[in-house]
Amino acid sequence: MKPPIHTVEARVRVRYAETDQMGVVYHANYLVWMEVGRVEYWRAVGLRYRDLERDDGILLAVAEVQCRYRAPAYYDEEVLIRTRVGEVNPRMIRFEYELVNAADGSGIATGWTKHIFCGRDRRPHRLPEKYHAALGIVRKTK
Amino acid sequence: MKPPIHTVEARVRVRYAETDQMGVVYHANYLVWMEVGRVEYWRAVGLRYRDLERDDGILLAVAEVQCRYRAPAYYDEEVLIRTRVGEVNPRMIRFEYELVNAADGSGIATGWTKHIFCGRDRRPHRLPEKYHAALGIVRKTK
Amino acid sequence: MKPPIHTVEARVRVRYAETDQMGVVYHANYLVWMEVGRVEYWRAVGLRYRDLERDDGILLAVAEVQCRYRAPAYYDEEVLIRTRVGEVNPRMIRFEYELVNAADGSGIATGWTKHIFCGRDRRPHRLPEKYHAALGIVRKTK
Amino acid sequence: MKPPIHTVEARVRVRYAETDQMGVVYHANYLVWMEVGRVEYWRAVGLRYRDLERDDGILLAVAEVQCRYRAPAYYDEEVLIRTRVGEVNPRMIRFEYELVNAADGSGIATGWTKHIFCGRDRRPHRLPEKYHAALGIVRKTK
Repeated sequence: MKPPIHTVEARVRVRYAETDQMGVVYHANYLVWMEVGRVEYWRAVGLRYRDLERDDGILLAVAEVQCRYRAPAYYDEEVLIRTRVGEVNPRMIRFEYELVNAADGSGIATGWTKHIFCGRDRRPHRLPEKYHAALGIVRKTK
Repeated sequence: MKPPIHTVEARVRVRYAETDQMGVVYHANYLVWMEVGRVEYWRAVGLRYRDLERDDGILLAVAEVQCRYRAPAYYDEEVLIRTRVGEVNPRMIRFEYELVNAADGSGIATGWTKHIFCGRDRRPHRLPEKYHAALGIVRKTK
Repeated sequence: MKPPIHTVEARVRVRYAETDQMGVVYHANYLVWMEVGRVEYWRAVGLRYRDLERDDGILLAVAEVQCRYRAPAYYDEEVLIRTRVGEVNPRMIRFEYELVNAADGSGIATGWTKHIFCGRDRRPHRLPEKYHAALGIVRKTK
Repeated sequence: MKPPIHTVEARVRVRYAETDQMGVVYHANYLVWMEVGRVEYWRAVGLRYRDLERDDGILLAVAEVQCRYRAPAYYDEEVLIRTRVGEVNPRMIRFEYELVNAADGSGIATGWTKHIFCGRDRRPHRLPEKYHAALGIVRKTK
């Protein structure tokens, strides 16, 4: 299924805390930035992830992540995170990301994260129908 | 009041993730190590902080921290965290820490953290009496 | 000495990664936010900390930090970081911070960090004179 | 090529700082644990990654990571990290990881990281021959 919005952009500025002694951003932080990207995705389609979790008890448990590193990111640079939904159905959602240097557009990394919709008990739980439209989930008909 | 145990030791090995581009451990991580130290303090007096929180709904909200940095810590070094209780009563506890290089005993940092005992609602809540003895809290008598 | 600019504001949105199982921001992250605040302070006075470090080999080694926690910060909230210089001379600089909830202005934390100007060898080194004016360091005359 | 040592074990105890408001370990921290695992791998084959980097200027730039999450890890639990080399040649090394609960052996996650051997300039650089034996890299002969 195709979500109605294609790509949402978010920006982060590299923090000193995010660098390591190699003089570049420590690789695990890219996963944190992807999370920043997906929060903005929710906001762009009119939802707030915080409310999903707090009000409806829907958690997005991370099931799998993949990241390919192309070029290092450096302290105080601005990084652009482009997020789109690669796949979505009432049981799971897969976000795809492209991280680029905001100044020159050069690629920093690409990756994706797969999430299972869960209830407060952290067990798989179908996404309530009221959220389907915003994510472009349509009922299959004959 | 004086707690029955004086100083408890814990060890951490510096992770690459904890360094920054200055080539040393990023300063905020010392607070994480202090937390490692205080968890071991609880264990040494026969308590498990996890259980305090999970079973009795007691949270230790951080009220104040202070850290003085003496010498940098480097990647892959082992750091010794010496933790003791500086002050404790049914409303609060103050831990004091000394961080030293485990190899040569040289000082890395000193600091303290002050915590308020809270309930699950994160509001101040007196520490239940069953925990007083382990922490050396004694009832004042005339 | 008084710096020419009084208070500089920066904003961060609380990341999921910054929360802990108490449901609030983990306390060590406030130190990371203070760093975000002081980077913006440099920028506001016309300097870029990255360049200080990269071009002139000036490092700001953290010597001491203190933070007092007033109220928790929650996921996805926007936090305003107000940074000002409390004290500065060619050997050290002390930044003071006030963290408030950007939505309602309520206080989250206050704190300060003290830094020693160092050279690439991480030993104390006087701040070059060309930076004095921006920070309001004036030569004492009779 | 097959490295001489098959699997190396390391242990971490889950820190409070590593949890998030879902009450479990934040997913990006698994990458930090994998790094703990591979440092111990180096040590087990008689090398110290710190020395590789410091003395020979060899950096292991992360090129790709993948992690599959099976079950959550909780605060104060001990996690066992099993690390082995999946592939290695003078240009790259791929580590494979299995994270299990140390108490009951149940699976927490599996994953791998691929690294390119680089020089101090962060450009690809063949691993010096003196390290080949420890990693099981053998010269191909007719």
